[in-house]
Amino acid sequence: MRTKHFVMADTGWPRCANSLKGVILDLCGVLYDSGEGDGVAIPGSIEAVKKLKASDLKLRFCTNETQATREKFVGKLQRLGFDISVNEVFPPAPAAISILRERGLRPHLLVYDGLLPEFDGVDKTDPNCVLIGDAAERFSYQNLNEAFRVLIGLEKPVLFSLGQGRYYKETDGLKLDVGVYMKALEYACDVKAEVIGKPSPTFFQSVLNDMGLQPHEALMIGDDLVNDVGGAQHCGMKGVQVRTGKYRPSDERHPTVTADGTVDNLAQAVDMILSQRRH
Amino acid sequence: MRTKHFVMADTGWPRCANSLKGVILDLCGVLYDSGEGDGVAIPGSIEAVKKLKASDLKLRFCTNETQATREKFVGKLQRLGFDISVNEVFPPAPAAISILRERGLRPHLLVYDGLLPEFDGVDKTDPNCVLIGDAAERFSYQNLNEAFRVLIGLEKPVLFSLGQGRYYKETDGLKLDVGVYMKALEYACDVKAEVIGKPSPTFFQSVLNDMGLQPHEALMIGDDLVNDVGGAQHCGMKGVQVRTGKYRPSDERHPTVTADGTVDNLAQAVDMILSQRRH
Repeated sequence: MRTKHFVMADTGWPRCANSLKGVILDLCGVLYDSGEGDGVAIPGSIEAVKKLKASDLKLRFCTNETQATREKFVGKLQRLGFDISVNEVFPPAPAAISILRERGLRPHLLVYDGLLPEFDGVDKTDPNCVLIGDAAERFSYQNLNEAFRVLIGLEKPVLFSLGQGRYYKETDGLKLDVGVYMKALEYACDVKAEVIGKPSPTFFQSVLNDMGLQPHEALMIGDDLVNDVGGAQHCGMKGVQVRTGKYRPSDERHPTVTADGTVDNLAQAVDMILSQRRH
Repeated sequence: MRTKHFVMADTGWPRCANSLKGVILDLCGVLYDSGEGDGVAIPGSIEAVKKLKASDLKLRFCTNETQATREKFVGKLQRLGFDISVNEVFPPAPAAISILRERGLRPHLLVYDGLLPEFDGVDKTDPNCVLIGDAAERFSYQNLNEAFRVLIGLEKPVLFSLGQGRYYKETDGLKLDVGVYMKALEYACDVKAEVIGKPSPTFFQSVLNDMGLQPHEALMIGDDLVNDVGGAQHCGMKGVQVRTGKYRPSDERHPTVTADGTVDNLAQAVDMILSQRRH
């Protein structure tokens, strides 16, 4: 059984391309590596996005990126050479703002400076919850302690985390992601955070709703085995991992998540999908 | 049963004082509150230590303090007015150095500047493990990321943590403790840290060995319900919590740890013990 499963996962996945109606792509680590300035496009990925757009497949971009407003973030992708527009991109911050409004919550924010304008219209006085994103260098001892003091001072601490990633890759190496600081605050206050973004099923479903597709009609391609691939599979979608970005060889021996396919990069994944659909 | 247990815990504890041969005291939050400069002695605690020293009980101090060398730390306590000498105080760093030597490990250190001299004689080249203490402001994003990169680069990551506290109290408020950053690195690298210090049974046992006592002959007094009281109880000692330092009223309703007694402060605990022994 194990051998058969492995064979299916490793070489059988492009067959599902025949029944696909849409593809969802992660951004960082799949289209580009972040780093100094705008970062760098991963070879072949600009062309791969063009090919998908020229096909009959629907295409959306689902990211846990929380270092910039959606407009600035998409501007960066366009400068890198990608044909992407704002309404095709789904980051966690707009989803978080909806949840805060619905539940009448006023956040203490610990997020990257560049993301703050997204929260301009949100009441932040007398905070009754804490919301953290990938704050990177802003995750100083002082700032984390301040967020902790707000949480521990609440009768019922509420902590939101924009994603739960462990780390990501920049051009100069691996960087700690928001999930690490989520775990830190969870332990400090003995609470469980509510994750907004991948792998939350609600978050994937909002993208599928926008595409007008059922889960089995869509494929997620990402570099994060647990949050991209596992999250998508948990929703009933197929999930393929690329060997770029934060990919590590040990991902292919992960104890609980097995990708439907593993490919060298996005260009290879797209060529396999489109070639399969031509048969 | 619950009522009976509560009564025993709350008012019955001083009776165990008759069979005691020694007392172990936590320091921060029991003898003093840390903060600017040397911090401040908790009212009555200087006199309480004097009374214990004048009694026939053996006395040791067991701390997860890792911000200074043992000599500097004891110097601070003496300036605050406490009659304490270096060989009575047990912090985690000397225990850690023994373990590193035994196992041939070379640490990457993420500790408070003041603790570094303790590790002067330890080989730190080409590190094959990471050791963290309460680094406070040195827990910057950059420093935590550096420790993470060392760990994730090891074939088998080994992480030591000097204590696992959630937070402690300084004169200007609650501060995040080392355990929070231990959990952060555990999650980032999918490893389990080895804790050196309270509540590690090995650590408590080393203090008992120095006193020449069996666990049932000793009482631990601390402000940390889980690490002081629970840790001591786990070793077979009695554990009493003071309502100073990081004590919070919810500690008295903790789901898994119930102190053998809860007292307003060290002075009250010592008076109860000595008064019981005179009967």
